[in-house]
Amino acid sequence: MSSEPRLVEVRRNILKQNDVLARELRDRFHKAGVYVVSMVSSPGAGKTALLEKPLGLLRGRGLRVAALTGDLATDNDAARLARSGAPVRQITTGTLCHLEAAMVAKALEGWNLHELDFLFIENVGNLVCPSSYDLGENLRMVLMSVTEGEDKPLKYPTIFNTADDALITKSDLAAAVEFDEAAAARNIEAVRPGMEVRQVSAKTGANLDRFLDWLEGLKILV
Amino acid sequence: MSSEPRLVEVRRNILKQNDVLARELRDRFHKAGVYVVSMVSSPGAGKTALLEKPLGLLRGRGLRVAALTGDLATDNDAARLARSGAPVRQITTGTLCHLEAAMVAKALEGWNLHELDFLFIENVGNLVCPSSYDLGENLRMVLMSVTEGEDKPLKYPTIFNTADDALITKSDLAAAVEFDEAAAARNIEAVRPGMEVRQVSAKTGANLDRFLDWLEGLKILV
Repeated sequence: MSSEPRLVEVRRNILKQNDVLARELRDRFHKAGVYVVSMVSSPGAGKTALLEKPLGLLRGRGLRVAALTGDLATDNDAARLARSGAPVRQITTGTLCHLEAAMVAKALEGWNLHELDFLFIENVGNLVCPSSYDLGENLRMVLMSVTEGEDKPLKYPTIFNTADDALITKSDLAAAVEFDEAAAARNIEAVRPGMEVRQVSAKTGANLDRFLDWLEGLKILV
Repeated sequence: MSSEPRLVEVRRNILKQNDVLARELRDRFHKAGVYVVSMVSSPGAGKTALLEKPLGLLRGRGLRVAALTGDLATDNDAARLARSGAPVRQITTGTLCHLEAAMVAKALEGWNLHELDFLFIENVGNLVCPSSYDLGENLRMVLMSVTEGEDKPLKYPTIFNTADDALITKSDLAAAVEFDEAAAARNIEAVRPGMEVRQVSAKTGANLDRFLDWLEGLKILV
């Protein structure tokens, strides 16, 4: 019916190569003592907004932070994030709907990772493609905005299943869209049992400090 | 750096096969006198909500409508849409982030297309993968909710460029998210000059009748 099997075979080889590179990256990150957080979500769930304020806030806490941000086209996000004063680089993927370890390695050229506490990697907005690509990160965060519907974890199980932590964004709109928090938590639990779920609003700043405390704690635990 | 070139080659062959099948579908649709509208958008932009009421409303206007709805997992959307009384079938794509013409052909088995005025095809929620797959539709509509950010057309130019019409959804939330209508229109115009842009709210019903009038008109024009 579809030519999917052949595509799957080619993809498997690409994934193998990616895994080797991701392992190398993970090793580099570990040796440099930088904690790497990657973010995946559908387009417009608020990955950039969630980084925009926190990059500055984390710098305010004396932490050395940097970010890579992926998109098919434009360097809008890098420009937005660079306003925080943190080093930021855009990765433009062209037609590719995810980041790969090789792109991350290339984007890091010339940066001294030993001078960083946190590196954030914002993946391309997509709930399918990024799932299988290890980027050597310590933590993969899946974001889901309250406006997207509580059923997204059931519809895109793999991206939730391959994440370490879930973050519900745009909580300031929860009432307007009649967001059912319990249903969302239940659906996340169904596809990724035991995953913690946080809720924040980058716009109003609700729960943002608590979120950053938690991030700082993760780095200390390593 | 990446194994993308090899993947592109395999993908090109798949696309060629898809185009042949899509042409056959288009021919079948034309002969049967059914007008086919496909919908693409990011996850949670409101494709299903936009069909939910309209399917019933179009039936109320004496039109014979049916829908196919694509998702990686679950048949939630088909269940939601079937409440309208219209024939609805779910296409479950597994790990695949788009519909293909072959899946549409298979899902139509046993349906008499001559008995339909409109067939709606709801693609998998994704702003990248569905762009290159012709499904034989008369009209491809790209949906973008006011909550996603006005920059999405610039970031995902191909999906906007391959669409025939743009629909801004969840207009009831426009004020809450400070949606900049002019910026969104400007960005759409930049990647797809001349494309018409409509704005609706499935929730409040704002502009819904006008949208359906327009759809009805398209069918008459064929």
